[in-house]
Amino acid sequence: MRNSERTKVKLLLESGVVGAEVAAMGWVRTKRGNKNVAFVALNDGSTIHNIQVVFDMTRFTEEQLKGVTTGACIAVRGLLVESPGSGQRVEIQANYLEVLGEADATTYPLQKKGHSMEFLREIAHLRPRTNTFGAVLRIRHAMAYAIHKYFNDKGFFYIHAPIITGSDAEGAGAMFRVTTLDLENLPRTEDGKIDWNEDFFGKEAKLTVSGQLEAELGALALSEVYTFGPTFRAENSNTPRHLAEFWMIEPEMAFYDIQDNMDLAEDFLKYLIRYALENCADDLEFLNKMYDNELIDRLKFVIENPFERLTYTEAIKILEAANQKWEFPVFWGADLQSEHERYLVEKHFKKPVILTNYPKEIKAFYMKQNDDGKTVRAMDVLFPKIGEIIGGSQREEVYDKLLSRIHELHIPEKDVWWYLETRKFGSAPHSGFGLGFERLLLFVTGMTNIRDVIPFPRTPKNCDF
Amino acid sequence: MRNSERTKVKLLLESGVVGAEVAAMGWVRTKRGNKNVAFVALNDGSTIHNIQVVFDMTRFTEEQLKGVTTGACIAVRGLLVESPGSGQRVEIQANYLEVLGEADATTYPLQKKGHSMEFLREIAHLRPRTNTFGAVLRIRHAMAYAIHKYFNDKGFFYIHAPIITGSDAEGAGAMFRVTTLDLENLPRTEDGKIDWNEDFFGKEAKLTVSGQLEAELGALALSEVYTFGPTFRAENSNTPRHLAEFWMIEPEMAFYDIQDNMDLAEDFLKYLIRYALENCADDLEFLNKMYDNELIDRLKFVIENPFERLTYTEAIKILEAANQKWEFPVFWGADLQSEHERYLVEKHFKKPVILTNYPKEIKAFYMKQNDDGKTVRAMDVLFPKIGEIIGGSQREEVYDKLLSRIHELHIPEKDVWWYLETRKFGSAPHSGFGLGFERLLLFVTGMTNIRDVIPFPRTPKNCDF
Repeated sequence: MRNSERTKVKLLLESGVVGAEVAAMGWVRTKRGNKNVAFVALNDGSTIHNIQVVFDMTRFTEEQLKGVTTGACIAVRGLLVESPGSGQRVEIQANYLEVLGEADATTYPLQKKGHSMEFLREIAHLRPRTNTFGAVLRIRHAMAYAIHKYFNDKGFFYIHAPIITGSDAEGAGAMFRVTTLDLENLPRTEDGKIDWNEDFFGKEAKLTVSGQLEAELGALALSEVYTFGPTFRAENSNTPRHLAEFWMIEPEMAFYDIQDNMDLAEDFLKYLIRYALENCADDLEFLNKMYDNELIDRLKFVIENPFERLTYTEAIKILEAANQKWEFPVFWGADLQSEHERYLVEKHFKKPVILTNYPKEIKAFYMKQNDDGKTVRAMDVLFPKIGEIIGGSQREEVYDKLLSRIHELHIPEKDVWWYLETRKFGSAPHSGFGLGFERLLLFVTGMTNIRDVIPFPRTPKNCDF
Repeated sequence: MRNSERTKVKLLLESGVVGAEVAAMGWVRTKRGNKNVAFVALNDGSTIHNIQVVFDMTRFTEEQLKGVTTGACIAVRGLLVESPGSGQRVEIQANYLEVLGEADATTYPLQKKGHSMEFLREIAHLRPRTNTFGAVLRIRHAMAYAIHKYFNDKGFFYIHAPIITGSDAEGAGAMFRVTTLDLENLPRTEDGKIDWNEDFFGKEAKLTVSGQLEAELGALALSEVYTFGPTFRAENSNTPRHLAEFWMIEPEMAFYDIQDNMDLAEDFLKYLIRYALENCADDLEFLNKMYDNELIDRLKFVIENPFERLTYTEAIKILEAANQKWEFPVFWGADLQSEHERYLVEKHFKKPVILTNYPKEIKAFYMKQNDDGKTVRAMDVLFPKIGEIIGGSQREEVYDKLLSRIHELHIPEKDVWWYLETRKFGSAPHSGFGLGFERLLLFVTGMTNIRDVIPFPRTPKNCDF
């Protein structure tokens, strides 16, 4: 059967014409029945729902249906009819069957019964065929598309920040080295050091931890830009919240101050969540039912309420006044931990929170310095269950102030000369933020382990598939 | 001035209401005039066109306008009026000026005069402020967005293939190593070899050369998927056509045979080029005028004509019969070189060509073997000026055939067990292809060096910015 004949299951279920001869292809989820009739639940990944295919055993032989087992791939033709059974509007009365690929019932790992998330991670090549990962991957697609659509509609330009970088100025975390040197035979300089001139890029090269600095170069030419690309952390963190390779979205906008930045971040997150509710209803209902009964309510709550905005200093006062035992002590100058962030969001304000004006010592060199000499115009957006989902700031656009902060932090000027030059030539107030794509997906899907919202997770001791 | 007051130059020029008080922010391209009036061409990156800002010198002092030099960033308020001059419909009669960031005329590298592309590559942090790179980056954005829109509208799902990979099975080219080992102090096993167990991922890890194999895993669950991500080649190729880091789009579709695959590739390319003509007209006109007078005609020609489809074997006969001197000899079994591809496209057929059924020896292990035992169901799409823009194939879905090809080519089974399993469990005919994003951009922009269609090119001895 040619693909051109086929209609996707999603379309058949939503708008298939009863009485029409149709064709479908997909993977068998279950087969049941008796000697008179067989019912096959067929899924092609276009939707979480299966279409029921009914085989009248006066038309088909047992032998023909032998290969129709859980996991097998089949093509069927038949009449689309109203389903007498409950649970589906329509079904296919098959008159033609082709088994495209069998799945031996004794070895196929995805039988009907449930599987642990740990086990499914070990078969990441097959887990997209499960209801859960089908739903997660469809939502992941929808969120990626919504991100591009949001920015495109607003006149932002997508900038591809480089993945391999010769600069490690951002200091956001430990970096992976990229090299083509023969490690068994390292070239040496006269004084016995590794000769990086001989490496592919003629110097040490790493995988990027952030595209922000390059995005700023784009914003200071095209006004409003964003990146959406992979970023890397070589930290040995084996937690449900960390990946060595993850995707980040980093919008950067000339002429935006910190208020504009907060407005954009809030509008952006609400747009994405609304998009998911409108475009992924079936998948969200499944996840709501199976994993997290409060998921859809939580998503709706976020889009219906304004985020609470306050300063870091105000937040510290609230935390100090709270009748709570903290694992990490609370004092002005402390970096907020997940327990503090979640207290503010889940207990105190009971809604998303945007904190601003953090102590400069706990934030990056490029953030705009406030006149108090102590704080910078940072902003973190804190979400229920997730904690920090967005981190951003207004950027320091004044050359002298930026340079003196770079000196204070002993960042080599030769690594950031190009970044400094944007403050020398046509500088402008500007702002931006970073959204971790998988953090967003944790929130939108209700999954609790970040390894389960990316197709092929990379973590310490794991880069399989 | 707050950003919320500002209107983008593109909007002012297209739909600004004459007689309205408006505000604009952007970078000064030129200033000219006399002691009575100054004319400033202001650009904010939203469009290739500048808006003219007129300063009546009875309202402004020379001192106030001193900072308004080429490259400076300014904010202006004023009346939008019909322009008496030629070249623009409207202009701003300024009544307020703020210099946001000066650009010292003696050191700012982007003065009015033209610059060589080589020089502009050395200042990749500033070149987005030029007309050429503004145009290229806006087109790059539009093409990226069109790619996502095309696939989303068709029901494809975006799959993020991993960037760091433990497998080097694809064999598409030399790979970069990714490591966190201390190279001055490499851990050793008992027999003196480097102990990769001690590396971050517990084994050797590389940067991906293609997301195809992982995309196939997606397609065999969700039917139609695509990747769009960075890929890497550690080849020491210093040519205008090669980058060490570039972006690839790799759609992969269950149930598609080679014909469906060709239909999709042709439809996809035409969609993208049509999108560029409809959405990037101003930028294309600029590039057409400045770099390549045949650019727009070439783009239109491609969307208006069906691609020529023929087999590799037929192409070899045409090339053998051609009255041409070849640098590389033509014979059945030879890998086609650029000179051959361009002859077919530019001289013989005078339109894009899709070649199919290549000798299996010159194609990858995963391509579907034809019954002749000699050829595989590969397809290459060849374009004028570019040569191969798309490479793809129907994939070998038969487990035994795939396995024997893997053995023939001495690919370690342990590297591809997961790939093989998709042919063991619910295999299906399927196809896909790869489009090099920067190759597409060379075609659409008319640029001739691939370093000029990516914001921050990575090439041998260069990973600056």
